[in-house]
Amino acid sequence: MVDALVVFAHGSRRAEANDAVERVAAAAAEKGGFAIWRAAFLELAEPTLATAVEELHAAGAKRIVVTPYFLVMGVHLAEDLPRLLDEAAQAVPGVELVATPGLDGHPALADILSERARSAISD
Amino acid sequence: MVDALVVFAHGSRRAEANDAVERVAAAAAEKGGFAIWRAAFLELAEPTLATAVEELHAAGAKRIVVTPYFLVMGVHLAEDLPRLLDEAAQAVPGVELVATPGLDGHPALADILSERARSAISD
Repeated sequence: MVDALVVFAHGSRRAEANDAVERVAAAAAEKGGFAIWRAAFLELAEPTLATAVEELHAAGAKRIVVTPYFLVMGVHLAEDLPRLLDEAAQAVPGVELVATPGLDGHPALADILSERARSAISD
Repeated sequence: MVDALVVFAHGSRRAEANDAVERVAAAAAEKGGFAIWRAAFLELAEPTLATAVEELHAAGAKRIVVTPYFLVMGVHLAEDLPRLLDEAAQAVPGVELVATPGLDGHPALADILSERARSAISD
């Protein structure tokens, strides 16, 4: 079983923002032991989820884990992502897609926020 | 010096998503030692940043730390937030506003993503 990772993000008009997603996706893939991976975007950046799934399947992935890089379960995760997953599954038969929760609810998020806040006034 | 925290998020049409921001803001305020705090939203939810700043100032805050609950430095943080901070500062004279970076670049984010991804296929 060759597993691949897709980190699915919103996408931005600012290239630096999309580059930041590429960096965190690369780090997550390395930490998670995924040899092949892609960042994919809902809009404003490339590749789409379907393109990323096609490329990873062509690279040998049998199972692709799709992890959303979103902070909350908003409309994009509740409605857009399920539709895009269906489309990708239809476009690339024979690949297993496994969607995971986004970041929401992870206790480290409050730690990051409090770190950012405290360090701004630790003078 | 009475410090307060504002966690500034995008806002969603889904009430559950905005509730999740309230929860993480409460946890961050507690961890960071901020007795008074608000979640504030760019759009689709209330309060606005200016309203949150007014309320915290009325509650006794002299210095308000504004920490964005955004994953990347996109248009909302690069352009919208600076404008909203200016507006809030003009609307509430006598309060010190301290903006901090968002979540982008924090190493824990890749940890969360890889945790989410691995746990989905750890069967």
